[in-house]
Amino acid sequence: MNKPLRIGIAGLGTVGGGALAILQAQGAMLAGRCGRPLEVAGVSARDKNKNRNLIAKLRWFDDALAMASDSDIDVIVETIGGAEGVAKALVEAALANGKSVVTANKALIAQHGLQLASLAEEHHVVLAFEAAVAGGIPIIKALRDGLAANNFKCIAGILNGTCNYILTSMWDEKRSFDEVLKEAQAKGYAEADPGFDIDGIDTAHKLAILTSLAYGVAPDVTSMTIEGIRRITLADMNFADELGYVIKLLGITATMESGICQRVHPCFVAKGSPLAGVHGVYNAVLVEGDAVGRMLFEGRGAGAGPTASSVVADIMDIARGVTYKPFTLPVAQLKASIFAPTAALSCSYYLRLSVVDRPGVLAEITGIFREQNISMRSVIQHAHAGSEAVHVVITTHVTGETAMLAALVAIEKLGSVKEKPLMIRIEEL
Amino acid sequence: MNKPLRIGIAGLGTVGGGALAILQAQGAMLAGRCGRPLEVAGVSARDKNKNRNLIAKLRWFDDALAMASDSDIDVIVETIGGAEGVAKALVEAALANGKSVVTANKALIAQHGLQLASLAEEHHVVLAFEAAVAGGIPIIKALRDGLAANNFKCIAGILNGTCNYILTSMWDEKRSFDEVLKEAQAKGYAEADPGFDIDGIDTAHKLAILTSLAYGVAPDVTSMTIEGIRRITLADMNFADELGYVIKLLGITATMESGICQRVHPCFVAKGSPLAGVHGVYNAVLVEGDAVGRMLFEGRGAGAGPTASSVVADIMDIARGVTYKPFTLPVAQLKASIFAPTAALSCSYYLRLSVVDRPGVLAEITGIFREQNISMRSVIQHAHAGSEAVHVVITTHVTGETAMLAALVAIEKLGSVKEKPLMIRIEEL
Repeated sequence: MNKPLRIGIAGLGTVGGGALAILQAQGAMLAGRCGRPLEVAGVSARDKNKNRNLIAKLRWFDDALAMASDSDIDVIVETIGGAEGVAKALVEAALANGKSVVTANKALIAQHGLQLASLAEEHHVVLAFEAAVAGGIPIIKALRDGLAANNFKCIAGILNGTCNYILTSMWDEKRSFDEVLKEAQAKGYAEADPGFDIDGIDTAHKLAILTSLAYGVAPDVTSMTIEGIRRITLADMNFADELGYVIKLLGITATMESGICQRVHPCFVAKGSPLAGVHGVYNAVLVEGDAVGRMLFEGRGAGAGPTASSVVADIMDIARGVTYKPFTLPVAQLKASIFAPTAALSCSYYLRLSVVDRPGVLAEITGIFREQNISMRSVIQHAHAGSEAVHVVITTHVTGETAMLAALVAIEKLGSVKEKPLMIRIEEL
Repeated sequence: MNKPLRIGIAGLGTVGGGALAILQAQGAMLAGRCGRPLEVAGVSARDKNKNRNLIAKLRWFDDALAMASDSDIDVIVETIGGAEGVAKALVEAALANGKSVVTANKALIAQHGLQLASLAEEHHVVLAFEAAVAGGIPIIKALRDGLAANNFKCIAGILNGTCNYILTSMWDEKRSFDEVLKEAQAKGYAEADPGFDIDGIDTAHKLAILTSLAYGVAPDVTSMTIEGIRRITLADMNFADELGYVIKLLGITATMESGICQRVHPCFVAKGSPLAGVHGVYNAVLVEGDAVGRMLFEGRGAGAGPTASSVVADIMDIARGVTYKPFTLPVAQLKASIFAPTAALSCSYYLRLSVVDRPGVLAEITGIFREQNISMRSVIQHAHAGSEAVHVVITTHVTGETAMLAALVAIEKLGSVKEKPLMIRIEEL
């Protein structure tokens, strides 16, 4: 048998603990497939007393950073999390010491990926992060390997299981956002501080990584339009249903005339679309390539098993000597900021207004649309339960986002409009 | 820039022509992603006068086999097709001469894969065949790399676009099998001699390859139950619809107590299943792994673009120095024939009978079910249009296949049963 690959695991939470469990339970199978044993040569975590049965016979490090300079460790698995602090210091130290790194840390890769990729290149080691995006779905390998012969037209993904769980539960059970969020927190599907997920930031990190791999650009979250799902109400779900759509939080990157446009926001997706059928904590990525056409990948986006599946797959690549540049292209060849703003977008829109129930209001609103040259597709008016205001819902034909935003500003100023209007983009996917 | 990878393409039909088109049009992009140019150093095909504009400036070989020993060619792309003859001779010669081979030839790999993999191992070269299964879907790479940390419980695929097109068209347009087949032939979706597709043989070849990769066994078509779609009628479609199912031709490999069971046959699939929503010429593969859970891959299974996408991806792997054993494990470690027969299966069944319309017939049939200890779930009886016989459709609860087959034999012998009964397995996927 060939020399074992010696692995140091930093962080034994869901992902790290899951990876350790697979490495320990499936040693013979993994060694067969890799052609060499995968040996856990060190572990480090916040609490030595957790996971005792898993780590009993393993070498313990009080300081994760010490693993990065240990000569008996070949590869560091970083599952601590967070874009800064110990996680970043550990990955930097490991790469600088010539050790390959496997991480599930999307925030770290989205925000410091370029610098870390440079370090990896300089020291001729691997920086792998399949588990950082869409959990068990091997979408990073697909973009880098399996679909590498394509120019990508569009990548659209349901990348955050928490949001998809909340939206699916609201839809299925006709319950409010707040109610479902509280339940998700109780079940452990949402964090105590849920903003990172429900405000779209987690999706943005993941999308920036996919964009980088598909389009040969440096990962960039800063230029992205990011809207979360806090303002989605049951009323929106019902209107969507009536109009033939479901509501999903999507991360979308697509080529436009003025460049690549990356954005994260809730979308109306037609019920027949493959993304509309992705329920609960599942993730999915729709890829459109010039050669392959449309491809859908669907699977579990979180949880110990799926995420560990991807972490261990990355370890196996390293064990087999598969070496890639972290973002496919060498860092020097990655293009910077060729991003088009969301304002350059053209699509159809859904607009939900809460207006005073008196004659002439609709005329004011449609007048604004006419001024902006926006062609309306449908108007629905429903009474609010127990309120003097009524819901007016408008969908438009394809129009420029700039015109739509201008209309929105004008509508918001109308005395008859009671709440901040909600605009949702209708995506043809 | 690094040394170019010099490619010889044998066969310039849909797949070979498609690959050549990508290599010629996307040279700069591919070279960037691979770190070296991909150079077409030779082509060979049946007719030198076809594809003239594509091949005008290329080195032409009248004899494809001559490319296998040409010192200016590093890699052979075999897209001639067929399990024997020139295709096989070319692949053997190339591997024996130390050239890596990329092929889209599922028949060749399913039937001679083991021998060819031995040759590739012996000469330390790559034998890659991503395009052989599910066209543009990178399912081979997913099983070998992205999902390599999993023990696979089940793989179920819609692997033949012709069959899926025929079944989808029958369903959508309420047209007969023969009518739709003729149209598919006219459109070029089905061959003049369609047996290879509609009798399930093509699906069986593809499934044998997936089974080999997932379960570490030698590809084996001989032990497989293979049933095609010729006997599916519009009546079956209507009954399926009534019962909440669609009909799909699936290739399924699953672990059972007595071993791995591989089978190809039409299935009833519940309308909510992800495989039920795969329409027309699309392919899909559902993978269930112990760590990752359920994953779905969906995309185009045929056509120049998708198939060439996979061929070129394989070429890019070789250019980047990624080397794998063809079936993941070394040939010596592949297990042989641990296959369980379909008779060991337990599932629910759909049975369509054509019986004489007189009292007592149903009692005879249900008596046979009682004798075999088979529990029925539903019985539907519909009059044939313009016939003295009636359709009786029975679905069962989960039961052993042996009992079901025994019941079928007994039922066929009844004087009141007019045609050979049709049995379709109901799969919970």
